[in-house]
Amino acid sequence: MISKISGGVTAAKGFSAACCAAGIKYQGRTDMAMILSAVPCNVAGTFTTNRVKAAPVLWDSRIVYDVRQAQAVVVNAGIANAATGDEGMALCAQTADFTGKLFGIPADSVLLGSTGVIGPNIPIDKITAGVSAMKETLSDTEEAGTAASKAIMTTDTVNKEFAVEFDLPAAAGGSVTVRLGGMSKGSGMIHPNMCTMLGYVTTDCCISQPLLQKALSAVVPDTFNMISVDGDTSTNDTLLVLSNGQAGNIPILEENESYAVFCEALFSVCRDLAVKMAGDGEGATHLVEMYVKGADTREHARTLARSVVSSSLVKAMIYGKDANCGRILCALGYAGVDFDPKDIELWLNGADGDVCFYQNGRTQDFDEDRALAILSETAVRFTCDMHMGTEEATAWGCDLTYDYVKINGDYRS
Amino acid sequence: MISKISGGVTAAKGFSAACCAAGIKYQGRTDMAMILSAVPCNVAGTFTTNRVKAAPVLWDSRIVYDVRQAQAVVVNAGIANAATGDEGMALCAQTADFTGKLFGIPADSVLLGSTGVIGPNIPIDKITAGVSAMKETLSDTEEAGTAASKAIMTTDTVNKEFAVEFDLPAAAGGSVTVRLGGMSKGSGMIHPNMCTMLGYVTTDCCISQPLLQKALSAVVPDTFNMISVDGDTSTNDTLLVLSNGQAGNIPILEENESYAVFCEALFSVCRDLAVKMAGDGEGATHLVEMYVKGADTREHARTLARSVVSSSLVKAMIYGKDANCGRILCALGYAGVDFDPKDIELWLNGADGDVCFYQNGRTQDFDEDRALAILSETAVRFTCDMHMGTEEATAWGCDLTYDYVKINGDYRS
Repeated sequence: MISKISGGVTAAKGFSAACCAAGIKYQGRTDMAMILSAVPCNVAGTFTTNRVKAAPVLWDSRIVYDVRQAQAVVVNAGIANAATGDEGMALCAQTADFTGKLFGIPADSVLLGSTGVIGPNIPIDKITAGVSAMKETLSDTEEAGTAASKAIMTTDTVNKEFAVEFDLPAAAGGSVTVRLGGMSKGSGMIHPNMCTMLGYVTTDCCISQPLLQKALSAVVPDTFNMISVDGDTSTNDTLLVLSNGQAGNIPILEENESYAVFCEALFSVCRDLAVKMAGDGEGATHLVEMYVKGADTREHARTLARSVVSSSLVKAMIYGKDANCGRILCALGYAGVDFDPKDIELWLNGADGDVCFYQNGRTQDFDEDRALAILSETAVRFTCDMHMGTEEATAWGCDLTYDYVKINGDYRS
Repeated sequence: MISKISGGVTAAKGFSAACCAAGIKYQGRTDMAMILSAVPCNVAGTFTTNRVKAAPVLWDSRIVYDVRQAQAVVVNAGIANAATGDEGMALCAQTADFTGKLFGIPADSVLLGSTGVIGPNIPIDKITAGVSAMKETLSDTEEAGTAASKAIMTTDTVNKEFAVEFDLPAAAGGSVTVRLGGMSKGSGMIHPNMCTMLGYVTTDCCISQPLLQKALSAVVPDTFNMISVDGDTSTNDTLLVLSNGQAGNIPILEENESYAVFCEALFSVCRDLAVKMAGDGEGATHLVEMYVKGADTREHARTLARSVVSSSLVKAMIYGKDANCGRILCALGYAGVDFDPKDIELWLNGADGDVCFYQNGRTQDFDEDRALAILSETAVRFTCDMHMGTEEATAWGCDLTYDYVKINGDYRS
């Protein structure tokens, strides 16, 4: 039984967090956050597929793939430390060295994250001053986790955190409660592989590093990689999971029942954080959910669903509450998946029943007033049945609004 | 020597055009056009790759691939006749039958085009009444061609036509002037393969059908398939070229010098029409040109260039005249082409000299005022040198504006 609990990165035992206003780019708000575990953690991660990788992405990749253990995460908002060359990498090393010495841990156990403008260097003096300041306020309270989730926001309008708990067999006999919580930021430059985002998940579960990475790799394709805001895959996408083993469960060393429960818990946290990012897309007024079922393969279902939520024309139509369903059909058609248009069915899902848009190879007549009422809800859901098999997938996105253009027409100032 | 001349689809000998206000969806404007050749033409074409193909696309494909000859084109704006199933195909057959009988030509020499809302059926009575009305006003004047180019517009703000002439050896000895002209429409749902559009090119050149198709297939990848407005590939994309041989040149039956000249002329017409569509993207205030050179393969150069002009974040930045060059680098990075960011150079091209954005693996300092001045021009051009080879390509797009959202938030009404 997996239960939602309040909190985020400090929900699990042994994790504390802090934030501060380092004045990196934003003024009058917090812009740095850190997470610290009482003991070294196994770490798993997944990163942007962009060929232009930000310096902290390169830094973290090495730790995740080679070192596989970490104890701290230091994040800044405002400057991405991307396209900064060797100098950007040197600034990462300086940040990690400073943090490591301050906390008495190895520099290569310090993970880094940056989000913001591509190009400029991070101001190292402000970064180190920020780390020093955060050392004084580190706390394992729920409030400290929430404050950290606010400090990493850029154009996000709300902070994003989620946590769950579940029971696992205890090492000492009986059972123990295990907790898993996370925070993320992301609003623009959001598109699969990885979607543009920073995400940090902590757990006190005792699980081997290879299985931690395997669990993460299993849940990402149906969570973070199924959201899109604007089709732009960032240079800085990073998702990290840290497990410190403090819960006292029997160590998960094989793909047993405990592993399955852990995967399910990780999935629920990742999906919640991902959907929150999609719904908070820059300027968004609607969350859009596209559910594809009856596909011949899972990957085809994912591709079709993503194509719809990524379409500028579908997104603009949702903003206008215009049931121009041909655009959804069009986006399915150019997804690159082979199908016969005669086979598929397309529905708009409403709380009081669904509206059929397309069936038997042609557009259906429907009640425009009912469609308008459904499209006026904050969350809008479509279902497409491909009638080709039994695989399914869901993708999440948001509408395209005047405010998206406004926010991105002058992001740097 | 290929020279630009005025005119469009009636520039070449033996082609006449007409239009009328059939009242299909729009009121108070023309919404049907036709082109008629005095004699049967060889025809070549290329169509949308969308799995959901509109009925006229299926109709025309059969003529282009099987019949390979045609004499008339009938186009309507307002309704796309897409997602209309067997009924939509029957309406195509009725339109072609009616037109064929009226003009005394075979029904399968009548090409059809539709653009507009996906879903509804075309009102066949209005269509046939329109064809009858157009029979009375067919004319080979330049004005008739221009009027036709206006009648096929949807959200286009300007009509698009272009024509050239060039000399070829005459069948009767000496040389003759050959003309080639075209019109196109397209403003939204514009993205490669095919870009969303209707395009009709006519020529009095005498050229075999296989070579006509070969020439078209050769020029499309660097013209119509290198533009993007919104990343949406339409159900109705159609580009047709009709050659009636009336110029009297020595028939082009092999890939000789005349064929090379013809290809060059066709390229210039297709490029002009394509760039006009990109610059007239829905709500656009800027034409964006991305030139990639030094790529290892032509296809990589095309992919990289297209990725930049398709990026919502780049497009919004151009609208805001914000030199946020990291977004261009980011869009190159996620294009799916392997490169080392240390190797590439990125420039903003100005009339009074270029501004370097990125070099030697990092963002460069640049004069913001100069960049702002260049970004304030109607046409904005960037150059990226990959330093990996000698291949190059150019892609065209437009900015993302409030008006794009406005136009597409309520397209059907």
